[in-house]
Amino acid sequence: MNKKRLQLGMIGCGVVGTAVANLVSDSTLNSFNEIVDLKSILVKNPTKERTNLLMTQNFVSDINKIVEDDEITIVIELMGGENPAFDYISRCLKSGKHVITANKEVISKKGSELVSIAKHAGRELKYEASVGGGIPILSSLSNDFSANPIQGIRAIINGTTNYILTRMDNEESSFEDVLKDAQNLGYAESDPSDDIEGTDAVYKLSILTRLAFDVAPTTSDIHKEGINGIKQKEFRYSRELGFTIKLIASAQKRSDKLLLRVHPALIPKEIPMANVNGAFNMVEIDGGLTGPLWFQGAGAGPNPTASAVLSDLMSILEGRNRIDQTIVNNHTELLQLAPMDDYRCRYYLRVTVNDKAGVLAAIATILGERDISILSVLQKDTDSKLKHADLVIMTHESKEKNMKAAVSEIKALLDVINLDSLLRVEEYS
Amino acid sequence: MNKKRLQLGMIGCGVVGTAVANLVSDSTLNSFNEIVDLKSILVKNPTKERTNLLMTQNFVSDINKIVEDDEITIVIELMGGENPAFDYISRCLKSGKHVITANKEVISKKGSELVSIAKHAGRELKYEASVGGGIPILSSLSNDFSANPIQGIRAIINGTTNYILTRMDNEESSFEDVLKDAQNLGYAESDPSDDIEGTDAVYKLSILTRLAFDVAPTTSDIHKEGINGIKQKEFRYSRELGFTIKLIASAQKRSDKLLLRVHPALIPKEIPMANVNGAFNMVEIDGGLTGPLWFQGAGAGPNPTASAVLSDLMSILEGRNRIDQTIVNNHTELLQLAPMDDYRCRYYLRVTVNDKAGVLAAIATILGERDISILSVLQKDTDSKLKHADLVIMTHESKEKNMKAAVSEIKALLDVINLDSLLRVEEYS
Repeated sequence: MNKKRLQLGMIGCGVVGTAVANLVSDSTLNSFNEIVDLKSILVKNPTKERTNLLMTQNFVSDINKIVEDDEITIVIELMGGENPAFDYISRCLKSGKHVITANKEVISKKGSELVSIAKHAGRELKYEASVGGGIPILSSLSNDFSANPIQGIRAIINGTTNYILTRMDNEESSFEDVLKDAQNLGYAESDPSDDIEGTDAVYKLSILTRLAFDVAPTTSDIHKEGINGIKQKEFRYSRELGFTIKLIASAQKRSDKLLLRVHPALIPKEIPMANVNGAFNMVEIDGGLTGPLWFQGAGAGPNPTASAVLSDLMSILEGRNRIDQTIVNNHTELLQLAPMDDYRCRYYLRVTVNDKAGVLAAIATILGERDISILSVLQKDTDSKLKHADLVIMTHESKEKNMKAAVSEIKALLDVINLDSLLRVEEYS
Repeated sequence: MNKKRLQLGMIGCGVVGTAVANLVSDSTLNSFNEIVDLKSILVKNPTKERTNLLMTQNFVSDINKIVEDDEITIVIELMGGENPAFDYISRCLKSGKHVITANKEVISKKGSELVSIAKHAGRELKYEASVGGGIPILSSLSNDFSANPIQGIRAIINGTTNYILTRMDNEESSFEDVLKDAQNLGYAESDPSDDIEGTDAVYKLSILTRLAFDVAPTTSDIHKEGINGIKQKEFRYSRELGFTIKLIASAQKRSDKLLLRVHPALIPKEIPMANVNGAFNMVEIDGGLTGPLWFQGAGAGPNPTASAVLSDLMSILEGRNRIDQTIVNNHTELLQLAPMDDYRCRYYLRVTVNDKAGVLAAIATILGERDISILSVLQKDTDSKLKHADLVIMTHESKEKNMKAAVSEIKALLDVINLDSLLRVEEYS
């Protein structure tokens, strides 16, 4: 037990940084304050008053005040974004400091490079807080599946979209109205595009994928669809069919290939993931030996994120090796990435059509020619004035490539007014 | 990276031992076989043919062949039970070997003593597989909640009873019939008493409690009720009231006291734990900072258990300190144990009564005198021949001590034929 006090540096002091600063100094909660001091915090404006801090802190505005301070041995990066975070983290590692970060974007885009810099410098780079908030999912993936040939990961890893989808399913509100409300309540940012377009989930999935499969996908390797096109009607019809809608991030192994995808999907109501509501996250890992394991909890928020940062801090203090440092591994094969065209699932298709004979036959013919068989058809919301109707079609399991081709032919049909929605059904075996 | 091959010993070779032996030698799944050899396995009958093993193994029948073999540096104990496992584990630790065990009974009863022997010997004692099968719950509790003032643990940690309760809720079968079937299918042992009486759950709860709260309860410190008295009727009535029944193990902090209990409880249908079915386990940890986290997966079975054993093996190989070796802790207060009499919850009470006026009034009077108010009463299954009826009473939140006193007075009422059931409602805030 080394009682020498360690000096920490911190980059950024928003809500998570404030929580971390307060937690390492609050001796009623834990004993960090017996061995560490938070020496310097890098912020844009060091003179700004920060009333939420329990203790006075030393703010600096120049990164060199941290990089060149040899007393500081561990730096916590909480500024977010790719740049200048990448530069700051690299320089801290190269100057001999361990780094803890909650920054999913920089770990997703530059993770392999940063890991290699850390290894070269003989320092640790830890990023538990970058995925799943307080859920210790990276620690588990890195440490607890050593003998498992991991088969797949499937997750709800974006709290903002899950909050919006849950409310759309529970209320009769539109995407736009719920988003506005989520922004007012602080569940969505003023520029929500990273969340609702699926980018945030792509970052997190790429981090999980690297740890689980030793494959480092770029963000463009991951099929991405957001939730911004989703209509209220889809929830109503899905519910009738026994489903809810979630934004799913998945990395699944099929023989020697790995398929990576982020998109909204219909989830059967009886599956645990269908009942993960509000801002909660859930990560499902099929370990091969363990069978499926589910980890659920708050995926964001200052305290859960700070908890993950501090568990990384503790692992450094205790000299535990965790992420990215294994001597036994379960990556016995080099996995290729599969194209989304190879994916197979059932599909939910909604088209607005002219309500007259022969339209369904024409659609069914196109699907049949592409080897897509229909499981059920509901005709809904017939508009007797416009003579329009909704056709809600569920297919049997079909190939993505075929469905894409069929869909463009269906769109071109004279009596098809609009192809409103094409959603995948998430398959559980 | 140390490439010197390590020699393992193993004690016991049942289904889990066979899985472990096969997994460390199967290079298609992981790379353990590049650095470890399984040198000797202690069994009662070394000449017995074991056709399930992938490789020929060296069986011994004398523990000294393992204890005194200086080449063996890590021993995996899979024999179960308190004795002679305690003696074998102690001797292995004292002779300088690391020990991995899946034995919940010996860790529950002798954990503190074994931890102290291990520390004294400078060796590691690991027991991830003793709770929750393939769910990495001990690793998470030990490593990932460092800054959290843990508030409570609540779990379904016995697969056998959860399997039985799930089937009783889904079918119209009696406890006895489902148990018999579970035994035939291998979900329950021929002597199922440890599982159905709650003893197994008590062992596991005591292990979780020691890691989460730094309190080492004896088994008699934990209030224990099994599921053997539960009638089919309770599932029918609970369902009508919006509940299912699960065997819950709980350690909850209230101010500076810790209440430990294992008993069947009514769970509101909309709570995640209500939907954990069959042989699955779920552990809920309220971390204080993280908020509630749920870990769900297969709680038993050869492969999940072997996965936990091998994650312990990997942590020793990588020199990670985990369980029982922390320099920062979240145990800022010494917790006293609270008596079960202090517990407060809603109660479900079913009594068979003579179907005549005044009986309910008499029962209500007794409850009222004990400060127990009634939330609802259902009169059910009136038997017009015998003039009997079931009264199903739900109370508001009340004190255990008061309910115990009321119950014995109710039993003594002339028109009360039987007090069939008294169940607690699990409270979620």
